[in-house]
Amino acid sequence: MEHLPHCETLLLERNGPALQVTLNRPEVRNAMSLQMVAELATVFTRVEQDPTMRAVVIRGAGGHFCAGGDIRDMAGARGQQAGEGRNDPFYQLNRAFGQMIQQVNESSRIVIAVTEGAVMGGGFGLACVSDLAIAGPTAKFGMPETSLGVIPAQIAPFVVERIGLTQARRLALLGLRIDGAEACSLGIVHQVAESEEQLTGMLGQALDRVRLCAPNATAETKALLHRVGHEPMNQLLDSAAEKFAAAIRGPEGTEGTLAFMQKRPPIWAGNDY
Amino acid sequence: MEHLPHCETLLLERNGPALQVTLNRPEVRNAMSLQMVAELATVFTRVEQDPTMRAVVIRGAGGHFCAGGDIRDMAGARGQQAGEGRNDPFYQLNRAFGQMIQQVNESSRIVIAVTEGAVMGGGFGLACVSDLAIAGPTAKFGMPETSLGVIPAQIAPFVVERIGLTQARRLALLGLRIDGAEACSLGIVHQVAESEEQLTGMLGQALDRVRLCAPNATAETKALLHRVGHEPMNQLLDSAAEKFAAAIRGPEGTEGTLAFMQKRPPIWAGNDY
Amino acid sequence: MEHLPHCETLLLERNGPALQVTLNRPEVRNAMSLQMVAELATVFTRVEQDPTMRAVVIRGAGGHFCAGGDIRDMAGARGQQAGEGRNDPFYQLNRAFGQMIQQVNESSRIVIAVTEGAVMGGGFGLACVSDLAIAGPTAKFGMPETSLGVIPAQIAPFVVERIGLTQARRLALLGLRIDGAEACSLGIVHQVAESEEQLTGMLGQALDRVRLCAPNATAETKALLHRVGHEPMNQLLDSAAEKFAAAIRGPEGTEGTLAFMQKRPPIWAGNDY
Repeated sequence: MEHLPHCETLLLERNGPALQVTLNRPEVRNAMSLQMVAELATVFTRVEQDPTMRAVVIRGAGGHFCAGGDIRDMAGARGQQAGEGRNDPFYQLNRAFGQMIQQVNESSRIVIAVTEGAVMGGGFGLACVSDLAIAGPTAKFGMPETSLGVIPAQIAPFVVERIGLTQARRLALLGLRIDGAEACSLGIVHQVAESEEQLTGMLGQALDRVRLCAPNATAETKALLHRVGHEPMNQLLDSAAEKFAAAIRGPEGTEGTLAFMQKRPPIWAGNDY
Repeated sequence: MEHLPHCETLLLERNGPALQVTLNRPEVRNAMSLQMVAELATVFTRVEQDPTMRAVVIRGAGGHFCAGGDIRDMAGARGQQAGEGRNDPFYQLNRAFGQMIQQVNESSRIVIAVTEGAVMGGGFGLACVSDLAIAGPTAKFGMPETSLGVIPAQIAPFVVERIGLTQARRLALLGLRIDGAEACSLGIVHQVAESEEQLTGMLGQALDRVRLCAPNATAETKALLHRVGHEPMNQLLDSAAEKFAAAIRGPEGTEGTLAFMQKRPPIWAGNDY
Repeated sequence: MEHLPHCETLLLERNGPALQVTLNRPEVRNAMSLQMVAELATVFTRVEQDPTMRAVVIRGAGGHFCAGGDIRDMAGARGQQAGEGRNDPFYQLNRAFGQMIQQVNESSRIVIAVTEGAVMGGGFGLACVSDLAIAGPTAKFGMPETSLGVIPAQIAPFVVERIGLTQARRLALLGLRIDGAEACSLGIVHQVAESEEQLTGMLGQALDRVRLCAPNATAETKALLHRVGHEPMNQLLDSAAEKFAAAIRGPEGTEGTLAFMQKRPPIWAGNDY
């Protein structure tokens, strides 16, 4: 990505095959402002255009992932004239966040969330759409919305997709706050690190795996996974077989087969790819 | 609830913000009779009309939750003339139970199941529609239907919704009986107590959480959770954003925001609410 | 099954109430060839016609379950002229495997997978459609497809059905290889044995449970489980109540009720049934 977008709320840096995106409002525990939502959307759009970006790592500055929605935006919306229905500034504020979450969920790249400290409300929702989520030793997860008299409107649906209705109803309805170990046993995160060093090691291992997997095959596989349950299985498998045939006849399938027979790493596993 | 309905198979008592409903046929391990089904349906209908009832705790008298369907009702249905299709008394007996389970599942209040001893057949189904299920040290769960030559018709679908097809197929098809620890690892219950005291403590903590969460926001959140997977995500999130705007502008959102800024508990957290 | 089909890639033998099917190409770690796919499909079709076959146990010869697709078939497909779309030999090779997996998933009998050694690619998919999966101490599971430049087209959808999107996306997109303990915690398998003896014991216990459960009631229950989530709950429960009435009035329900009252095992639990 030669021309990284200019961002005020995010730090962007290259980390091996990945773009590392750091939510960077540490003074408010990286609360998700409208500007941050817009910048994340821009970054994920740009990533789709850069074939060298095979993964996106999202983390937070200052020891926290993201504490949730931004209070100042809320106050701003309350100060504005209430519109009807979808003209209400609260509607627009809330829905914009959900649209960004949907975009991250459907990103063709591997999305890795490194969660530390507060992973609350909107931050919790963002962690729930990653392909790999790793919790650091300080991570705390929760949806405190109902204790504030509001609802986790753009978050709870992704929590249900992440961990199922059974666990989501307990967490959301009792407004619980859980640690990394419980988040891992529920499937919110996939791994828990007991130290910063271990967290860094787990991230490094994941990025090593990213390198070994062919980029287009990975994107096709991710799109396939998202279709399960949304269309009849027969139709999905018919379509998947067409994609298999295209993949094995395409450049990656040809190179992968050849590398396997020649007992060498495929070209996409190299540092320069 | 000034006028609690008169019940012969249930004990009703107030427990903090909750109505405690005790299945009370200990001589038959609280087997689910047609009358008990009807009384549960009446109670849940009445609870919806009483805003002070924020939760319902279901448990069983005499050390058992519920051993399943009532043998006497089965014998009674067999004694009656077999009707065609939905006029068959067995159809009606079975379907009535499922309708009650659906009603409990969709209750706008927080439903807590305290499971001890036998949690079998219909009792298992009932536990599977709670928002929080706690297992006591003696709890045993299972679907013995196929070993009796019948099918867990109104139960197995809720078990699949609770723990997914993978675990449900093993439990239902082998007619297994499992303890609280395994039930917790599968997600049937959320917590396991090792003693009566711990069970009471877990229930008390849950009711403390109920108090902290705004009642209408909780009901809206629960309804939202139930919609996931049954309609397109975009449509669900659009609708959820409208509900968010209504909630934050409504009395609970106003009070919650104010209480947060004033660093005091919201009015719904008080004992008199 | 008096006339077991003649198979070259499978060993068939009776194991109590079950047909044991051993994938038998140990020289290639039981790689799934087109012929093996066809023979498995034939066996499962024949099993449906034999009421004494109440379960099917699938395992592999030589210490491995199944290492995935067969390289020789792949080379053969590449050697053939590429057809358009569904005339492509790669399409047909891939889709034939998925059709067999669907057939095994929907088998009316209890399907038990005994997984040891390599459980990769297509072998992983096959394990994911069992009603009970037991891992031996050497089992390793994974979808290496993307590291070869192709996609787990007929496998990943069943992995999502098995363990949900959250875990499937990590496993498939990073091409991970996991052991039996992790496979069990994710729900790919239900039990892990620490030795051959324990594995044999677990299988024996499962077959004992198969005997206790009425065959037709089991088949009806399995079909019911597969319908959950694919039609409205009300409609499903209405239909299930009809099946309940038919089951309890039928021969198995009559015998099961009688045996229960007479405190004796039902006829289907006997060795001669």
